[in-house]
Amino acid sequence: MRSLTTSPVMAPEGGGAMPTNIDTLCINTIRTLSMDAVQKANSGHPGTAMALAPVAYTLWRDVLNYDPANPLWPNRDRFVLSIGHASMLLYSLIHLAGIRDVRPGGVSNDRPALTLEDLEQFRQLDSLTPGHPEYHHTAGVETTTGPLGQGCGNSVGMAIAEKWLAERYNRPGFRLFDHHIYALCGDGDNMEGVSSEAASIAGHLKLGNLTWIYDSNHISIEGSTNIAFTESVHKRFEAYGWHVLELKDANDTGDMRRLLAEAKAETSRPTLIIVHSIIGWGAPHLAGTAEAHGSPLGVEEIRETKKFYGWPEDKSFYVPDGVPEHFQVGIATRGAAASQAWDDLFRAYRAKYPDEAAQLDHIFAGTLPEGWDRDIPVFDADAKGVASRASSGKVLNEIAKNYPWMIGGSADLSPSTKTHLTFDGAGDFQPPQWGGTYGGRNLHFGVREHAMGSISNGLALYGIRAYCSGFLIFSDYMKPPIRLSALMKLPVTYIFTHDSIGVGEDGPTHQPIEQLAQLRATPGVTVLRPADANEVAEAWRTLVRLTDRPSVLALSRQNLPTICRKTYAPATGLAKGAYVLADTDGRPDVILMATGSEVGLIVKAGEKLKADGIRARLVSMPSWDLFEAQPKAYRDSVLPPDITARVAVEQAAALGWDRYTGLAGETIVMHGFGASAPAEQLEVKFGFTVDAVVAAARRQAGK
Amino acid sequence: MRSLTTSPVMAPEGGGAMPTNIDTLCINTIRTLSMDAVQKANSGHPGTAMALAPVAYTLWRDVLNYDPANPLWPNRDRFVLSIGHASMLLYSLIHLAGIRDVRPGGVSNDRPALTLEDLEQFRQLDSLTPGHPEYHHTAGVETTTGPLGQGCGNSVGMAIAEKWLAERYNRPGFRLFDHHIYALCGDGDNMEGVSSEAASIAGHLKLGNLTWIYDSNHISIEGSTNIAFTESVHKRFEAYGWHVLELKDANDTGDMRRLLAEAKAETSRPTLIIVHSIIGWGAPHLAGTAEAHGSPLGVEEIRETKKFYGWPEDKSFYVPDGVPEHFQVGIATRGAAASQAWDDLFRAYRAKYPDEAAQLDHIFAGTLPEGWDRDIPVFDADAKGVASRASSGKVLNEIAKNYPWMIGGSADLSPSTKTHLTFDGAGDFQPPQWGGTYGGRNLHFGVREHAMGSISNGLALYGIRAYCSGFLIFSDYMKPPIRLSALMKLPVTYIFTHDSIGVGEDGPTHQPIEQLAQLRATPGVTVLRPADANEVAEAWRTLVRLTDRPSVLALSRQNLPTICRKTYAPATGLAKGAYVLADTDGRPDVILMATGSEVGLIVKAGEKLKADGIRARLVSMPSWDLFEAQPKAYRDSVLPPDITARVAVEQAAALGWDRYTGLAGETIVMHGFGASAPAEQLEVKFGFTVDAVVAAARRQAGK
Repeated sequence: MRSLTTSPVMAPEGGGAMPTNIDTLCINTIRTLSMDAVQKANSGHPGTAMALAPVAYTLWRDVLNYDPANPLWPNRDRFVLSIGHASMLLYSLIHLAGIRDVRPGGVSNDRPALTLEDLEQFRQLDSLTPGHPEYHHTAGVETTTGPLGQGCGNSVGMAIAEKWLAERYNRPGFRLFDHHIYALCGDGDNMEGVSSEAASIAGHLKLGNLTWIYDSNHISIEGSTNIAFTESVHKRFEAYGWHVLELKDANDTGDMRRLLAEAKAETSRPTLIIVHSIIGWGAPHLAGTAEAHGSPLGVEEIRETKKFYGWPEDKSFYVPDGVPEHFQVGIATRGAAASQAWDDLFRAYRAKYPDEAAQLDHIFAGTLPEGWDRDIPVFDADAKGVASRASSGKVLNEIAKNYPWMIGGSADLSPSTKTHLTFDGAGDFQPPQWGGTYGGRNLHFGVREHAMGSISNGLALYGIRAYCSGFLIFSDYMKPPIRLSALMKLPVTYIFTHDSIGVGEDGPTHQPIEQLAQLRATPGVTVLRPADANEVAEAWRTLVRLTDRPSVLALSRQNLPTICRKTYAPATGLAKGAYVLADTDGRPDVILMATGSEVGLIVKAGEKLKADGIRARLVSMPSWDLFEAQPKAYRDSVLPPDITARVAVEQAAALGWDRYTGLAGETIVMHGFGASAPAEQLEVKFGFTVDAVVAAARRQAGK
Repeated sequence: MRSLTTSPVMAPEGGGAMPTNIDTLCINTIRTLSMDAVQKANSGHPGTAMALAPVAYTLWRDVLNYDPANPLWPNRDRFVLSIGHASMLLYSLIHLAGIRDVRPGGVSNDRPALTLEDLEQFRQLDSLTPGHPEYHHTAGVETTTGPLGQGCGNSVGMAIAEKWLAERYNRPGFRLFDHHIYALCGDGDNMEGVSSEAASIAGHLKLGNLTWIYDSNHISIEGSTNIAFTESVHKRFEAYGWHVLELKDANDTGDMRRLLAEAKAETSRPTLIIVHSIIGWGAPHLAGTAEAHGSPLGVEEIRETKKFYGWPEDKSFYVPDGVPEHFQVGIATRGAAASQAWDDLFRAYRAKYPDEAAQLDHIFAGTLPEGWDRDIPVFDADAKGVASRASSGKVLNEIAKNYPWMIGGSADLSPSTKTHLTFDGAGDFQPPQWGGTYGGRNLHFGVREHAMGSISNGLALYGIRAYCSGFLIFSDYMKPPIRLSALMKLPVTYIFTHDSIGVGEDGPTHQPIEQLAQLRATPGVTVLRPADANEVAEAWRTLVRLTDRPSVLALSRQNLPTICRKTYAPATGLAKGAYVLADTDGRPDVILMATGSEVGLIVKAGEKLKADGIRARLVSMPSWDLFEAQPKAYRDSVLPPDITARVAVEQAAALGWDRYTGLAGETIVMHGFGASAPAEQLEVKFGFTVDAVVAAARRQAGK
């Protein structure tokens, strides 16, 4: 193994004797629990937990404001393990800290979050200790991590949330929110673009409540980081406007304490602490090698490592007497006092500021304010109509006005996505140093879609009702956080405009084709593509109520006629995902179905068919997933199985439509990429015309 | 308008008089063509073209080694417009430089690439001047750009390609490759994570043949960049190991010439030239504002701007006499001499190094070497089998050995994706400064999936047969370049392993569900999910021949039985996308279909059904898109329309399967996210068992 710097927690030369230092005992407990669990599971990542045990221990025991008895205490410091593969590090900490099994979403059991038996079940079916930490699943896990860089982005969202809550709800004498957010990240995180984006915006926003602890171990899966990663991370973060510190030896807990104090003292910039560590520290043959990263060390190596630590070589999952107690006398004593003081403070706050306290109750519980929907507009029928991005902008403003903790923004496209909140008091979220305020509700993410999604997840983890926006094509840049919203059941609203070839002149690079299919295929995401302004209003009314899942709104750039709801069925049908917009006298000859901007097209085709004596049922299908969630009887009432003459129209890839057209039906869809031209000409070029729909309907109807 | 620095190309105070400086005339021609085209199209982005005209003009006229008569000359300098929205800047340059209409892919017309009439057709249907520049579509366009950051990534791929070609093919006295790659990027590019990733790896690789010209105009769509982007880009790039220069005034062409010379002289690092510009320069009311970015200036503003430039106010699309001539006496004279000298050099090279020259012919033409497939292995039947990632690794090595310009790598996962080339002489691509060589064939991308895809596109644009690899779940991180591979018809091979819940213990963050659907929905991508080692071999045999489209290989982490091809149909059926693996005597009672790892499952179910007297046809469906490309007769022969008893099995989202099961069939698929546990237990948990398949088959068969 590599030569090691002497450090206060190193085992005595040659190991063997049990060290007397209780901190060392605690640290080596974390290390050996991690090694043992990975070995038992025969899968996992031991090396980082072994290297970072002293760092994480110091942070948790001596610094973190966290009450293990009350893990949802709103003003707790947050700890994000962006290096989710090092999950055993976190699980060991949760176990030793004695966190209780209280989880977001209402699960509360009178038991520890993780027992030693739970650690032994690492990576096993239905255990509380999955391979990567999962929010909701394990108490003490603040966010689901594993896909690299995401925890970094989440932590920036959390830091924004903390600043926002403090600015909005703190009052003189009532510092309800004054906590810190820590993220533990690695070389992988820092190579990912999403963390670069997140770090840049965090620097701009001067988030002094944020500290990233960066494990620089010079090892990646393919070997030394020297093969691909030789930049100066230190200088890069300085360029972002961060405060950068270095811990020369991961084992130096005293120095770590000092750096954490410096990080907290620096309130005008985020801090990066670069930790120089040796992966798999203590393993005689594997320390400092890529082999220590993602595989069990092996029985013999573990034995020798334990010997080096001065650990009983024959014991597995061994927690020496006094270790949990020593750990908890730090974190739990400090945390209990702080959380109880906070409870008292909040009680007094509630008496003095009942309205604000009531809002905070909602935020903590993830519930909706009274009357949030009271001003949702109704739009009059209008043949010229309005772009759904524009009607959405109106509806969003009318809702947000009555939903004080609904905040969000765009990746530098708000004039196009129409997501700017314009009512009095909305304001921009900007740091005081730039002359702004952290209480603003309009976030400016810059051209950073990926970080925008990841930050929005961080906001949602605080109970803030977050939305973000961009062009539908650029959902491609932010797929990973959309997926994580779904996995974490976070009600982030993704507002994606310019949703088809209706984009027009910007051409194929900007015209989504497969994006609807990919979002529809993602589990746990509600996708809504409303047909007109009133469906937009209903889409918002529906999605705001969905507090346990993300929603995607696909909206048009171009004007869409506002359908006359006296002639056609009310837009409230949207809530069921699909509904009969217009029916026929007697059995339909054919069913025409469409979503979004193409509903206007089937309406026109329906009129023409009616004039020609062909009975066409018109179905608007704004949300496949909501439709699939309906009882079969409803679904069959909309699409009767015996009517197989069907035409579906959508300016998107065909994938998935066969479910509704059946093998006998037809689709009028995009069969390739779009093109650059005025939208009306593209509609003709790609066959989205009344004549084409009528012709398909006639073929299907056999008339 | 903002106060402007005095500069040699400024119009005389008050404007009005035609400037005499011919360079100024050229520059203002570019500006006014751009303004006029955007105005006529009533859509587009005038401001950046106006600001950067002096910079781009200087580069093209005085520096770029480019022969307009021979735009595919292999040793030409490359110019990448990463800010694709400023397409009129590029189109104006192409027009004025007199580039001929010779395009990659074989289109060669005896006409200019772009006439003045073509510029007047900007953004119109089927014109040669689409909203964003499109590779193949317009001669002189080196890559399709528009999605921000992608051009930056492409340029790094190009610089890698240039270094690789030089190292592999240059010989003493024969510097066939010694050109430079220039990319013009903006604030948006530099906020995107993909460009951060690309810049970091470019710095590591010490790509001294690369220069990014960064337009720092302090304006974004939502307003000043001060709202979201206040980092020091200068210091950040220094941290990456770049050489950083600044042009204080975009209008200072003399200083720009000097900086470009400095950039070229610095051969051991990539160079960033930060250009301080004023968007919409010269527009009296809109210069320096966000309004100049993405909309026409308006008739009156254009009139006043032309007045400021000293331009005839009433003329549109006006190219003064002498402007093209002056432009071309720079670029064309220099380029023609250089390209002709290169032709002579290559002729002499061919005489001395015929084998190498023959390889280069293939590279330039995008054709395959003789015998590339001669060593593709055949795998023996084996019940234990082999993971398809492992068999793919073997096949890749056997092909690459005989395909000298097939190069690639992984986003720090090659030990897992099995994509390392291990044969003699493969080597690693590393800069000499790190003790390596640019001739290596194994690229180490670091944990930078997004840049990996974008770089691979850049490699493919040089005719290098590029592959890249990662886990299928992380295809989410690199969707934008996959889409651009398809849009540009580039044969990049995406090798994605760990393709299902078969990942096991790593859990839901690492288990792909919707990824197959999203890749299948993307136009122009061939997706292959082979069932066993022999299908893997056939998948490679098939995809290598597809030289006009990207391919995705979805491969297993876990072992897959190698199917006995004496009992079952040969794997050559893969080429048709789907084939009957085992048929029945007489009419099948039911059709079982599956892809990849689930084919083994239907094989076992088929055996059990046979024993039970139920006739089940087994269909392996490794590639839906290849199957859809077959004649209907073939498709109907595999899936006869009258046999509606069908079961499809795939460890992925259901979306799309209805096309093959019909409304009467059944799917055994994933209905949500996966979980962390050993893979065999997940198969049971999620219903992928022989019993479940048999039960579904019986239900369908009614037996």
